[in-house]
Amino acid sequence: MNKLAHSLKEAIIDSGLSDGMTISFHHHLRNGDFVLNMVMDEIASLGIKHLTVNASSLFDIHAPLAEHIKNGVVAKIQTDYMSAALGKFISDGGMEVPVEFRTHGGRPRDIEKGITPIDVAFIAAPASDCSGNCSGKLGKSACGSLGYAIPDAMNARYVVVITDSLMQYPLIDWSISEVYVDRVVAVESIGDPKGIVSGTTKITRDPVGLSMAMDAVEVIRASGLLKEGFSFQTGAGGASLAAAKFLKDVMLKERIHGSFGLGGITGYIVDMLNEGCFESLMDVQCFDLKAVESIRTNPRHREISATHYASHDAKSATVDSLDVVILGATQIDTKFNVNVHTNSDGYIMGGSGGHSDTAAGAKLAMIIAPLSRARLPIVTDKVTCVSTPGSTIDVLVTQKGIAVNPKRKELKQRLVDAKLNVMEIEELKELAERISGVPQQTEHGERVVADIIYRDGTIIDRIYEAKAR
Amino acid sequence: MNKLAHSLKEAIIDSGLSDGMTISFHHHLRNGDFVLNMVMDEIASLGIKHLTVNASSLFDIHAPLAEHIKNGVVAKIQTDYMSAALGKFISDGGMEVPVEFRTHGGRPRDIEKGITPIDVAFIAAPASDCSGNCSGKLGKSACGSLGYAIPDAMNARYVVVITDSLMQYPLIDWSISEVYVDRVVAVESIGDPKGIVSGTTKITRDPVGLSMAMDAVEVIRASGLLKEGFSFQTGAGGASLAAAKFLKDVMLKERIHGSFGLGGITGYIVDMLNEGCFESLMDVQCFDLKAVESIRTNPRHREISATHYASHDAKSATVDSLDVVILGATQIDTKFNVNVHTNSDGYIMGGSGGHSDTAAGAKLAMIIAPLSRARLPIVTDKVTCVSTPGSTIDVLVTQKGIAVNPKRKELKQRLVDAKLNVMEIEELKELAERISGVPQQTEHGERVVADIIYRDGTIIDRIYEAKAR
Repeated sequence: MNKLAHSLKEAIIDSGLSDGMTISFHHHLRNGDFVLNMVMDEIASLGIKHLTVNASSLFDIHAPLAEHIKNGVVAKIQTDYMSAALGKFISDGGMEVPVEFRTHGGRPRDIEKGITPIDVAFIAAPASDCSGNCSGKLGKSACGSLGYAIPDAMNARYVVVITDSLMQYPLIDWSISEVYVDRVVAVESIGDPKGIVSGTTKITRDPVGLSMAMDAVEVIRASGLLKEGFSFQTGAGGASLAAAKFLKDVMLKERIHGSFGLGGITGYIVDMLNEGCFESLMDVQCFDLKAVESIRTNPRHREISATHYASHDAKSATVDSLDVVILGATQIDTKFNVNVHTNSDGYIMGGSGGHSDTAAGAKLAMIIAPLSRARLPIVTDKVTCVSTPGSTIDVLVTQKGIAVNPKRKELKQRLVDAKLNVMEIEELKELAERISGVPQQTEHGERVVADIIYRDGTIIDRIYEAKAR
Repeated sequence: MNKLAHSLKEAIIDSGLSDGMTISFHHHLRNGDFVLNMVMDEIASLGIKHLTVNASSLFDIHAPLAEHIKNGVVAKIQTDYMSAALGKFISDGGMEVPVEFRTHGGRPRDIEKGITPIDVAFIAAPASDCSGNCSGKLGKSACGSLGYAIPDAMNARYVVVITDSLMQYPLIDWSISEVYVDRVVAVESIGDPKGIVSGTTKITRDPVGLSMAMDAVEVIRASGLLKEGFSFQTGAGGASLAAAKFLKDVMLKERIHGSFGLGGITGYIVDMLNEGCFESLMDVQCFDLKAVESIRTNPRHREISATHYASHDAKSATVDSLDVVILGATQIDTKFNVNVHTNSDGYIMGGSGGHSDTAAGAKLAMIIAPLSRARLPIVTDKVTCVSTPGSTIDVLVTQKGIAVNPKRKELKQRLVDAKLNVMEIEELKELAERISGVPQQTEHGERVVADIIYRDGTIIDRIYEAKAR
């Protein structure tokens, strides 16, 4: 009954991993993660080939994956997010088989339904006991929630926990229990704490961002949703965080007690919990140390699995009860379709994450985006890639005006009545083009390099090989 | 997305329940449970027939099930424990199809492997929100852990939560999450708090019981297991509780810091946690109010699922890491086989519960039992029914002496060296017969009324129709 492996290599051999199988990783260690590269190097040295890598997200630190693709160790990638380093490699046609992009809710759905079965899951665990009861809340590489890893552990044929803090049995505050774990490997370090904590969790100082954040809060107020029991999610971008800060001020001033904050959690949302804006936090991922400290110590700050967060096929998920979500966009078109996968040139530099899941679930899904970035218009006729369908987006807030999805007539009237600067999205597009020029039609190659799989399993768009202009 | 049913009847109809299906119940409300009878009456009134009832345990309050068996509503019973009222009905041949007895670890194993699939699980939940995030820790019928219900909720095709405390969404301290729940029904009362708390959680005053408890602690000391990291489980019987009390005194005096207390948890084990004998408690069921209060408020007192507690087919379970368990017996034979299913006349009045699971897992599995009860010898040539195989039992402690399983030679030597009153089990049997007389061979009928299914899925014994002497 001893699950402790002497080495990662031994654990991989014990798992029976062989050519053509699927392995999985989670991304709570973000850009500080050592585990994916460590595992891939070991697998490569064992001569195992043609693997599918199912990773909840891939960051720049995972750029070495490109070498394993070139060498035939990795034949296919499934992920919810891919940052620019690997994104460029894929967009340049570096991989034969298209990447499968899913959402944070679609990934656990497809794992649980057996659409994307996992042979061996590798769980980077900041703390684990010898039987595999493991947690992200403790240890020198503490990352807080392990929410995205839970479906992997529960459904993989074989589960290897990799930790740099081996604790006495039983680790009582486990996120993943021993019943799912086959092997535990102790290593020197699973990650770099500086990279684990996001660099983006600071409020913007940019006046454009601040002005949009203020308008976002005015939209929420005018929507009628900001009342007792209010629930909220926002991202970790600067303007989104500013919106959280301004929202907190309003809620405290008006003594509004919300029910829950959701999502990737930052210190700003923790402040809202601690100051009484919310009864609880539902946390699938911690973005900063304050969030990690809070989930470790505050029982009202609770870890949720990716399934509980956002699965389309769970009997219900938290996103289904969400009032308001604030989201970003690299592009949004006049049908409110949002692109968060590629830049305007069509290069992969992101992914849906929970974008489409929360947009579909929330009563009010709001995009905050400036009209243009780096002299390229954000509001456009047609997005290069549909990440989130416009039918699930309710409002766009820009620095020049606010556009409401035409199917939300009652909401539009509310914003007009509140004297907000409501415009048609086509007007915003024209404004954007007046500032930054009409964007050239992006040319692309013939080959599909990625499929965008919506949360219900349907392919809603494809990304083609990019052609540098 | 509204899961709230207007009535239990509506929820049953929505579940698609029909003739021949399997429904399940858990027993955390013990002899105070209103839910099983309430559901069965509603099902009977809907005219649904030939159901299999899979209940983690059945108490005297569930005696009305006999009527549903007679009327053809219930065709088969699967359970881990059945108290005397229903036990007599079954032993008298009241049911055509044999009862399937499993263990607390075998039940979740067979549910998870699809051997005993559940169509509709009915979860008695002392607190739930409208989406089915539910808990046993809160509400007027609080029972603490919902550990036995977790595998049912995770694996049933349809899950109905029945609560008498509907809470605001999200109920943050859920034991079972909304992702598994189809319908929530609010009722006036799910149980009688007086029956929920066991009547057995008091230390014995009987000098025989106290003497055996003291000897049990001496056996633990002599075994060499009572040291840093020690782990322990005991039942809720009077002598077992007395052993816990004496063990606590020893651990405090000798400053031994154990790792965990396991099992059905009583206030005595909570005291051991609070006074520093254990780092944590792993709790599949609370036996008294002190345990309920502790699991609600102390993060080191953690709920575990039945799978995590004891499943034979989990990648590991807590019983696998257990040092010592103290168990009871209605009979034990000279091969150390233990009967906890029937009385000496062969009438069903119990069941394995976690008996065989903990015996198999623990490094030291000890039976405490007096030589005789009600003038019937407990130690005998051959038990009427093998609940737990003798190969997994290490020691028998009686008021007249201590017997060690012959295969544990090293342990026997330790007890001899500690000058404990070690005897052969055959000697204890003879002593018992000298006191109470040689028991008559129990006669029984031809018909099998129950199968005893061991934790690995094999049938280890059968119970036959009883013949009253």
